[in-house]
Amino acid sequence: METKFYDDQTMVNEKDFKEKWIYFVHDLQNRICAALETCDGKAKFEEDKWRRTGGGGGITRVISNGNVFEKGGVNISVVFGDVTDIMRRQLKIEGDKWFACGLSLVVHPYNPFVPTVHCNYRMFELYNHSLSPTGGGQEGVVIDRWFGGGTDLTPYYLFEEDAKHFHQTYRDVCDKFDSGFYPRFKKECDDYFVNWHRNEERRGIGGIFYDMQRPEEKLDENFWMNFSKACGNAFINAYVPIAEKRKDTSFNAQHKHWQEIRRGRYVEFNLLHDRGTIFGLKTNGRTESILMSLPATVRFEYDYRPEPGTPEAELLDVCLHPREWI
Amino acid sequence: METKFYDDQTMVNEKDFKEKWIYFVHDLQNRICAALETCDGKAKFEEDKWRRTGGGGGITRVISNGNVFEKGGVNISVVFGDVTDIMRRQLKIEGDKWFACGLSLVVHPYNPFVPTVHCNYRMFELYNHSLSPTGGGQEGVVIDRWFGGGTDLTPYYLFEEDAKHFHQTYRDVCDKFDSGFYPRFKKECDDYFVNWHRNEERRGIGGIFYDMQRPEEKLDENFWMNFSKACGNAFINAYVPIAEKRKDTSFNAQHKHWQEIRRGRYVEFNLLHDRGTIFGLKTNGRTESILMSLPATVRFEYDYRPEPGTPEAELLDVCLHPREWI
Repeated sequence: METKFYDDQTMVNEKDFKEKWIYFVHDLQNRICAALETCDGKAKFEEDKWRRTGGGGGITRVISNGNVFEKGGVNISVVFGDVTDIMRRQLKIEGDKWFACGLSLVVHPYNPFVPTVHCNYRMFELYNHSLSPTGGGQEGVVIDRWFGGGTDLTPYYLFEEDAKHFHQTYRDVCDKFDSGFYPRFKKECDDYFVNWHRNEERRGIGGIFYDMQRPEEKLDENFWMNFSKACGNAFINAYVPIAEKRKDTSFNAQHKHWQEIRRGRYVEFNLLHDRGTIFGLKTNGRTESILMSLPATVRFEYDYRPEPGTPEAELLDVCLHPREWI
Repeated sequence: METKFYDDQTMVNEKDFKEKWIYFVHDLQNRICAALETCDGKAKFEEDKWRRTGGGGGITRVISNGNVFEKGGVNISVVFGDVTDIMRRQLKIEGDKWFACGLSLVVHPYNPFVPTVHCNYRMFELYNHSLSPTGGGQEGVVIDRWFGGGTDLTPYYLFEEDAKHFHQTYRDVCDKFDSGFYPRFKKECDDYFVNWHRNEERRGIGGIFYDMQRPEEKLDENFWMNFSKACGNAFINAYVPIAEKRKDTSFNAQHKHWQEIRRGRYVEFNLLHDRGTIFGLKTNGRTESILMSLPATVRFEYDYRPEPGTPEAELLDVCLHPREWI
């Protein structure tokens, strides 16, 4: 297997636990970008490599003005540093050094009948430097570690068969690990992507979401890494067939108008409520990589409400009242 | 003078301090809406009266799709209720009942050469019910009171004469009260409307901003009410002549594109950093009235940077490095 380099400082290979995850994240980024480029048929991802003051960096890949994808990003980051007060407060953690590595993607299609999709899979480690067996290693002793992630779908028009396919894909992945996971992580997703200031309207039709999953006796760190890898690997099968099926649907200005109204809700959620966005911006994350999640064109209208009985009202209803799809 | 009713419960007249301010706020709303309608020449404000669960309500007036103004709101609210834990924490206040009354406006013109403008003038009172002389009045004893407000301009293209006119208007108002006010409140404005996540880029070219001004020996409550009234009254002269001067300027798709990019920054500031927006949404304020501040059409592009030497770059420079205009 080819040896990968994260940057000049960090060699990525299969040697140890952390490096396995770093390798996976790089490889997943390559596979997802290739699959989305094939689906788009025109646009290619452009890459920005960046370094973070304080430790690490990332690779941001952005696609824009494609046949299918108007704006999207598939980003990875491998970052580390000192534990700061804001991290102690917000994450309720101890330790003096941290490490995080993950992939985060958002894809906004141009056609209102193709849904927007988001996913994020990440590992976090905490170290206590004073406990380092050698007393001088960069990382010290791992005192805490967790995985988090999820994938969720934001359609503008509801196709039940698409919703079922998307949820079934993740249910199949979850069931291979624990039959309780899908119902639990589906509910966590419905409870997380909520515009609390709009009568608890959801951003979309959900998917799965899990956070801060720490190794326990049976569900050890290998279990959670394998689960996160399986979820990450499922993305292409969960989303691309939906985009393929809907990408040539004809649409008019009214459909586009509704898409832009709903994109406004997407912006509201990300900037007002999304913990990752707000935490990233407050802790000096790379602004352009974080805000690549925002759609290209957005519309805000005062007190906009779709006509009852329309497809637009149907979509809104399913955001207000999450359904069981399978 | 005509007796005004806030709603069926609260009579507004000139009788006492609080009622003077409530009367002023209603009257200012009427005068500003009339001036903006005259400037627009086509669109009329539409009015929504609303009540707040817990006490009070407001009058939201929205203008849309005019000749000049694409979207805007001139809102007033007269609200009161019990002091909650989130208020104690965020406002660092005591007391058990509160009252607030103010006017808040945002106007987004269609033409990129006409600037967006925002202003807000408000009074806040705190009561200790247990100290009420009668023991049973709705309000008890006033134990704290403050005024806050400001007006700031967000142009998309810089016209120095417009910036000077706007700042000079507020400097003239300030100087009638205290020659130290304009420099102090101009700086507070530059320090408040900041997109901290974008290298401290300002939302626009500022104006004045003051918050939590409590009565002291010489600067008593009448002083601060009169100052706030004078600032509120100055809005029409500060803004409307600029809109009149620029509203017929011809523009092309590139100008509109830049306006929508800058509107994206406006959205970022309001949803990520604006204390009023976030506090309002968290304390169960009326979402549609709060978010009327967002522009109609907005654009987010990855890592967008204007070409050096262009008018767009000049505007960005003045947002990154606030100037003294007078």
